[in-house]
Amino acid sequence: MDEPKIDRKDLTELRVEIAQVTKEIIRLAGMRTRLGGQVGIIKMRDSLPIEDEGMEDALIREVITECERVGLDRRTGLKILTVLLAESKKAQGEQERKPPAPIFSRALEQQRKGVKLVRLDVGEPDFPPPKAVLQGCSDALFGLKTHYTESRGIPELREALRRYLVSKHRFQAEDSQVAVTPSGRFAVYCALASVLSEGESAVVLEPNWPAYRDVLHQLGVRPSIVHTSFDERWTPSADQVEEAIRPNTRAIIVSYPNNPTGKVLSPGLFKEILELADDHGLTVVSDEIYNEYAEKPCPSVLETTPKKFVLTSSFSKTWSMTGFRVGYAVSSKETIVNISRMISLMITSVPEFIQWGAIKALSADEDVKRNVRAMQERVDAACEELDKIDSLEYARPDGAMYVFPRVNKQGETGDSFSEKLLTNGVSVVPGSVFGDYGDFFRISLGQPREVITNGIRKMGELFA
Amino acid sequence: MDEPKIDRKDLTELRVEIAQVTKEIIRLAGMRTRLGGQVGIIKMRDSLPIEDEGMEDALIREVITECERVGLDRRTGLKILTVLLAESKKAQGEQERKPPAPIFSRALEQQRKGVKLVRLDVGEPDFPPPKAVLQGCSDALFGLKTHYTESRGIPELREALRRYLVSKHRFQAEDSQVAVTPSGRFAVYCALASVLSEGESAVVLEPNWPAYRDVLHQLGVRPSIVHTSFDERWTPSADQVEEAIRPNTRAIIVSYPNNPTGKVLSPGLFKEILELADDHGLTVVSDEIYNEYAEKPCPSVLETTPKKFVLTSSFSKTWSMTGFRVGYAVSSKETIVNISRMISLMITSVPEFIQWGAIKALSADEDVKRNVRAMQERVDAACEELDKIDSLEYARPDGAMYVFPRVNKQGETGDSFSEKLLTNGVSVVPGSVFGDYGDFFRISLGQPREVITNGIRKMGELFA
Repeated sequence: MDEPKIDRKDLTELRVEIAQVTKEIIRLAGMRTRLGGQVGIIKMRDSLPIEDEGMEDALIREVITECERVGLDRRTGLKILTVLLAESKKAQGEQERKPPAPIFSRALEQQRKGVKLVRLDVGEPDFPPPKAVLQGCSDALFGLKTHYTESRGIPELREALRRYLVSKHRFQAEDSQVAVTPSGRFAVYCALASVLSEGESAVVLEPNWPAYRDVLHQLGVRPSIVHTSFDERWTPSADQVEEAIRPNTRAIIVSYPNNPTGKVLSPGLFKEILELADDHGLTVVSDEIYNEYAEKPCPSVLETTPKKFVLTSSFSKTWSMTGFRVGYAVSSKETIVNISRMISLMITSVPEFIQWGAIKALSADEDVKRNVRAMQERVDAACEELDKIDSLEYARPDGAMYVFPRVNKQGETGDSFSEKLLTNGVSVVPGSVFGDYGDFFRISLGQPREVITNGIRKMGELFA
Repeated sequence: MDEPKIDRKDLTELRVEIAQVTKEIIRLAGMRTRLGGQVGIIKMRDSLPIEDEGMEDALIREVITECERVGLDRRTGLKILTVLLAESKKAQGEQERKPPAPIFSRALEQQRKGVKLVRLDVGEPDFPPPKAVLQGCSDALFGLKTHYTESRGIPELREALRRYLVSKHRFQAEDSQVAVTPSGRFAVYCALASVLSEGESAVVLEPNWPAYRDVLHQLGVRPSIVHTSFDERWTPSADQVEEAIRPNTRAIIVSYPNNPTGKVLSPGLFKEILELADDHGLTVVSDEIYNEYAEKPCPSVLETTPKKFVLTSSFSKTWSMTGFRVGYAVSSKETIVNISRMISLMITSVPEFIQWGAIKALSADEDVKRNVRAMQERVDAACEELDKIDSLEYARPDGAMYVFPRVNKQGETGDSFSEKLLTNGVSVVPGSVFGDYGDFFRISLGQPREVITNGIRKMGELFA
C-alpha cells in the first residue's frame, strides 16, 4: 500500500483510507499469526523452546528502528509488537501464564483435614506486632479515625516516615516523595505500573519473590532474567546484569536482603549495578522490605540514589504487621503522583486507624531490635541443624528470614522433596516458585526456633 | 504483501518473513497515524469533535469481520485497534485522560488555610460505625488476628456475608461465589478487569460515579454512555440502553440507588435492562453500595439474576465504615477466582482484624435502621430547603445520600455555581464530574441535618 498524498484529500477519503490501512494491518496480523503457528510446528518437531529471547530482541530492535523511520511513537510500536508476540506464542501453543495459587493453600487444605503441619512455608514472622501499634490502632479506632484519607496517606504518617528515613538512611525526603501504600505488594505493583508500559521489559535478578514476575506479566511487561547461582553464592556479576538489558528495558528490580536466598550485596557491587542502571536510563525499583533483618547493614537505594528510583517497603516484616496491609513508597514527586493516582483509583487509601497505628511502629525501636535478634538466632539454629544433613547444601543467609538449601541427592529435586516433606508434616516452598531453581526449596524462619529445628530434623530423617 | 506458502519454508525463512510482516505492520501504523493527524487538522478547522463513536463502531465492525476472514482472534484484533485508535487520537491532539484529582483536595486545601467550610462534597456518612464493629475490630487486634488471610477473605466473614445475602435478597450464594475485597472500589476494579479486556466496551448509565469511567480508561475499555436526563427524571429507556450496545460491548454497569441522582429503577425496568444484557451476552456489573439507603426496597441483581453478573458492594455507606476499606463481590465461581487472583497479586488480603470487625456489622441491624432513618430525614430536610430556591430544580432522590439539583439561572452553570459556593464557604461537587452534566451539582447528605440546611440556605442567598 503506497503512502497517500494526504494534503489533497477530504475527510471522507481520509476515513476510507484509514479503514483500508486498518484492515490491511489486521490482515497482516492474521498472516503473521499463521507464520508463527508454522514456526511452532517446526519448534515442536525439533524440540526447540517457544521462548526465544534473541529473536525477540532482534524484532524489538527492528520495530524501534522502523518506528523512528516512519515517525511512530516507539511505545506504540512496542505495544503492537506485544500484542503480536502474545498472539504468536498462543499460536505456538504456549500456555497463558496465570499467577500461581498461593503455595500455602495446599498446606491450609492439609491442616483443615486435621493434618498437623510444621509451617515453614509462609514468609510471615510469628512475632506479635509492637504493643504500641496495637494500642495506637485501637485508640484511633475508638477515636473514630475511621474515614477516607488522602490517597497517599495521612500527613502525620508521611512525616513520621520521613523522620524514619533520615535516621535510618540519612535520606531527606520531601513530603511529595512519600506515599503510604496498602501493603508493600501494592507499592511494588504501583511502582512497576508507574514506570513501565506494555511491551517494555524489566531486569529481574533470580531467584526472587515471584510477585515481581506476576506483576510484570499482568502489566504486559517482559521480565529479563539474571540467573544468579548457588555456586557463585547468589552474587550477580555486573556483566550478567548488563547483558540482560534489552533494547526495550526500562527498569531493574533489586531486592536485598533477597527472598529466598538471604543474600545481601556488597555496597560496591550494589553501587555498580545502580550505576549500570543510570548508564542505561533505567529506573531502579528497590524492594527493601527485609532491610532491617540483616547481619550487617544492607545498602539501600536511598544511600546510593541513582537518577531514577522507587523504594518500596512495608511494615509487615520488621514490625510483624503482615495482617495490617500497610507499606510505603519513596520516589520522585512525579512517580509518587502516579502511585497516589493508582491508590486513589483502586482503593482510595489505607484504612485510617491502621495509619495511626503504623506511626507508633516507627518509634518501636525495642521491638525491632528484639525481632532482629530473634531472627539472627533462628538463622544460627537453622544453619547448625542443616549442617548435620549431608544431602542439603546452602549458603548462609546474610539477612531476610529464609534459608534456601539445595538438594544433593540422586533422583531427588527440591520440588520432589518439598512434596515428600508435605506428606510428612512439614511444609516448605519448592524452589521453582522463585525461578529456574527446581533443585532448591525455601525454609521460612517465621516460626519459633524449636519448630524450625524440628522441621529440619524431619528433613534429615527423610534423607536417612 | 502476498500470503506466503508456509509449508515449504524452513525456520530461517519463516523468521525473515515474520520480521518483514512485522515491519510492514509498523509502517502501516505510522501511515495510519499520519492520516489520523490529517483528519485532526480538518476536524479542528471545521470544529468537529475528535471523538466519533459512529466512525469507531464502523471500524470495530470491520476489524471483527476482517479477523473472522483471516482467522485472527477478535480480541487480538480489537487490542491492536485500541492501540491504533489511541495513537490517532493523540495525533489529533486529544489530551490523555487522567483520573481527576479527588474533588475534595481543593476543599481540604481551603480548610488548611483556615477557611471554615460546610463540606457537602464528600460521599461519606458522618454516622459513627456500629459500636459492635469497633469492639470486634479491637478485640481481634488484641487477639492477634494480625496475619495474612486467604485472598478472598476469612471463611467466617464469607459465611456471614452468605447469611446476610439470604436474609436480604433470598439469594443462596455458594461459598465459592463470594469474595471479601479491600473496598467496594477495589471490587469494582477487579470485577471490570475480570470481565473486560482491552479494546472491548462497557455500557455506563450516566450521570454516575466517575470511578467507573476512570477504571475503564485504565483498562483500555471504552465506555459507551447512556445519557439519562433530568427531564426524564433520570429514567433510562430500554431502547437507549440497546442503542448503546456496540459490537465490542461485553458488560453493562448499573448502580441503583444512583450516585449522584438517588434514582432507583422500577423492578420492571431493571428487569428489562437485565434481560437486554442477557440477550446480548453482556455481564451485568451491579454496584449496590447504596442499596440499604432507599425509600422503597431497591431491586438487586441477586433477585433478577441475569446469566452473567457481578454484584459489588461495601461496608462503607450502610455501616458508615469508609475508613475500614472493606467490601465484597458476589459472582460466578469463575469470576470470583479471577477476582481473588487479583487481590492476591496486588494486596494479598483485607487486614485480618478488619474482617473480624466486618462480621459484627452484618448483625448490627439497629445501626442500619437508625442510619437509614436519619438519611431519610436529611433527604426530607434538604428537599424542603431546596424548594425555597427558585433557581434550583431537582428530582427527589429515591435513595442513596445525595441530591443533584440543576441550576436554572441565566449565565450560571452547575460548575460555575459550585465554584462560587466554594469561595462562600460551601463545598459541593460540580455536575461535570458525573458526566455531561455541567448544569448540575451534587449535594452530599453525609453531614448533620442542620449543616445541610445551612449550606442550602447559603445557596439561596447566593441566588438572591
